[in-house]
Amino acid sequence: MLRDEDARWMDVALALSGRTRGRTAPNPNVGCVLVAGGRVVGRGWTQAGGRPHAEAMALAEAGDGACGATAYVTLEPCAHRSPRGPACSDLLVASGIARVVAAIEDPDPRTAGQGFARLRDAGIAVTVGTGADAARRAMAGFLTRQALGRPVVTLKLATSLDGCIARADGESRWITGAESRAHAHLERARHDAILVGRGTFATDAPRLDVRLPGLEARSPARVLLSATGSAPDGWTVLAAPEAIATLPGDHLLVEGGARTAAAFLRAGLVDRLLLYRAPILIGGGVPALGDIGLHRLAEAHGRWQMVDARALGSDRLEVYERGPCSPVSSAI
Amino acid sequence: MLRDEDARWMDVALALSGRTRGRTAPNPNVGCVLVAGGRVVGRGWTQAGGRPHAEAMALAEAGDGACGATAYVTLEPCAHRSPRGPACSDLLVASGIARVVAAIEDPDPRTAGQGFARLRDAGIAVTVGTGADAARRAMAGFLTRQALGRPVVTLKLATSLDGCIARADGESRWITGAESRAHAHLERARHDAILVGRGTFATDAPRLDVRLPGLEARSPARVLLSATGSAPDGWTVLAAPEAIATLPGDHLLVEGGARTAAAFLRAGLVDRLLLYRAPILIGGGVPALGDIGLHRLAEAHGRWQMVDARALGSDRLEVYERGPCSPVSSAI
Ligand SMILES: NC(=O)c1ccc[n+]([C@@H]2O[C@H](COP(=O)([O-])OP(=O)(O)OC[C@H]3O[C@@H](n4cnc5c(N)ncnc54)[C@H](OP(=O)(O)O)[C@@H]3O)[C@@H](O)[C@H]2O)c1
Ligand SMILES: NC(=O)c1ccc[n+]([C@@H]2O[C@H](COP(=O)([O-])OP(=O)(O)OC[C@H]3O[C@@H](n4cnc5c(N)ncnc54)[C@H](OP(=O)(O)O)[C@@H]3O)[C@@H](O)[C@H]2O)c1
Repeated sequence: MLRDEDARWMDVALALSGRTRGRTAPNPNVGCVLVAGGRVVGRGWTQAGGRPHAEAMALAEAGDGACGATAYVTLEPCAHRSPRGPACSDLLVASGIARVVAAIEDPDPRTAGQGFARLRDAGIAVTVGTGADAARRAMAGFLTRQALGRPVVTLKLATSLDGCIARADGESRWITGAESRAHAHLERARHDAILVGRGTFATDAPRLDVRLPGLEARSPARVLLSATGSAPDGWTVLAAPEAIATLPGDHLLVEGGARTAAAFLRAGLVDRLLLYRAPILIGGGVPALGDIGLHRLAEAHGRWQMVDARALGSDRLEVYERGPCSPVSSAI
Repeated sequence: MLRDEDARWMDVALALSGRTRGRTAPNPNVGCVLVAGGRVVGRGWTQAGGRPHAEAMALAEAGDGACGATAYVTLEPCAHRSPRGPACSDLLVASGIARVVAAIEDPDPRTAGQGFARLRDAGIAVTVGTGADAARRAMAGFLTRQALGRPVVTLKLATSLDGCIARADGESRWITGAESRAHAHLERARHDAILVGRGTFATDAPRLDVRLPGLEARSPARVLLSATGSAPDGWTVLAAPEAIATLPGDHLLVEGGARTAAAFLRAGLVDRLLLYRAPILIGGGVPALGDIGLHRLAEAHGRWQMVDARALGSDRLEVYERGPCSPVSSAI
């Protein structure tokens, strides 16, 4: 019963954590909700740029109401004092919070268990692990940066049923429908940066912005993959997929084309696949992927598992994440 | 209430009609159930080779129990007397049946409404149209032969997420898993004939039989598409897709490869797509389809609509049928 209630409130904190996904680097996108007597007394999420932290925002909203409340937070409250603000574990202690439920420990060595220790030392009850899997997915950018020294990479492909991303002559507008394209723009808003290859840049001259009412300001940084090209105004150029470690944000969306997608897969640098599929056949078109360095079919199995699927108009979206046999590359 | 009950019993008749799908040519695979006082008193389905008819079988099972019963039948009972057996409408009249519920009228000019007329003339209540869409799907082979002078054609493709049917060097065993392959064998058992192109014949030497316990005897006739080749023992050779009109059965399964699939699509000779998809990426492999003669992306839309989707192990099966904008070819 208590466990169910914890899980339910943690879902609220997780939803809040999504609000600024793609805009909080170098900080994690944390969500926090304060609950007293079964009612919400404060809500917070890491603000764009990384400050204020989620807990600070929620405590400010709750004021005296925080006293005796339970704090649900997607990540261990930080333990390090910074010139940009006090440590959240100190703030929680000072507020009179009675209990903290956290999804996962913070891997940042400046916190890594010390936040929990400080709370417990102050007599606060601490529960860890509620909603841990969902929290790892929600804050994958920060966690990938901590573990692998690079952003988390999503590869987007929009294909026909026969796996083409364009007709043979390059025509690619439109394969998918308006609903898919709107969803893809929403995904853009949740990423710090978008990358395309020089081929796509030259063919499609993509704007790579977010064309959804109210979200125009959420357009991510634009990145071009090219070993030979120079940067157009307002673009960053990377000479190879491995160079993504140098990008400032923690969420990178790779939007093609086929050679670029293949280069990222070959390098073990794709963590998540977004597959938009339209119910059409093209036949003899441009295949979605170039050579990804697969030596035997047997190696291909177990690398991807579906985590979400839904209809978008007459198209279908499928989301895959790394499976147990997926080679993964770090950048450190 | 009565309508719901009619629909429910028609579903039973439709299920029975599936039992001999792919083995009743030149006759339709009809299903029939006789119901009296809410209980089944007889069941029948067209037997292999086309006789006895479903109604004759159900009436034989019911005996005197047919008197006053309702007959649910997926197709209008036949009106033509044949040396192979009496007309089903006559049999129904003689049995004392009180009511006949039929899904659709028989397009065969020897019946085409005359079966219903004979029943009504004998004072039997007749309802037409219950489960009509499902019946059209269940007896698509016979109906396509009647309307277009050729078998109904299902194209099977087993692909990776990026739409490949083999690795670049031709390796195609296995892309899909055991569950998908078992399902594909079940589909074989529901077809009169299977066709592959000479390329696939040469590369894979496929047996094209049904390797499911108890269904071995249901293996369909084997057909090779080749303008140059000669027929191996036990195979029929067709020089072009248009020649399918000469095949004896009413259900043809096309199993590839890419050029053969494309040739059938280009000719407007695919009615149904069976898409088995494994959660793997191949990259730079053999694309599922060659040129299908598409001139603009806009033409591709509206040709296919999904009618079924399910998980098969970690694979997914999707079934598509012609949409409103699908060009369709006859053979007459
Ligand atoms: N439907 C969709 O989802 C979709 C999305 C995007 C694109 N497209 C289509 O895809 C087509 C373009 O694809 P594409 O494969 O020709 O080009 P591409 O992948 O967009 O660009 C290839 C270029 O990327 C650069 N690159 C740098 N490092 C690389 C590395 N390690 N590996 C590979 N490339 C590297 C190279 O540029 P340098 O030569 O300058 O080094 C290479 O020429 C267009 O027709 C476009 O419309 C479709
Ligand atoms: N994963 C799967 O679902 C699957 C299924 C089957 C095959 N495959 C793979 O597909 C590959 C073979 O495909 P493929 O495209 O090379 O060969 P294919 O389609 O199997 O055979 C092509 C041959 O069909 C004959 N043909 C006759 N009339 C034709 C027409 N109007 N249009 C086109 N072809 C006609 C031609 O033979 P003639 O030259 O004798 O006239 C042509 O060479 C193999 O690697 C196989 O493993 C995969």
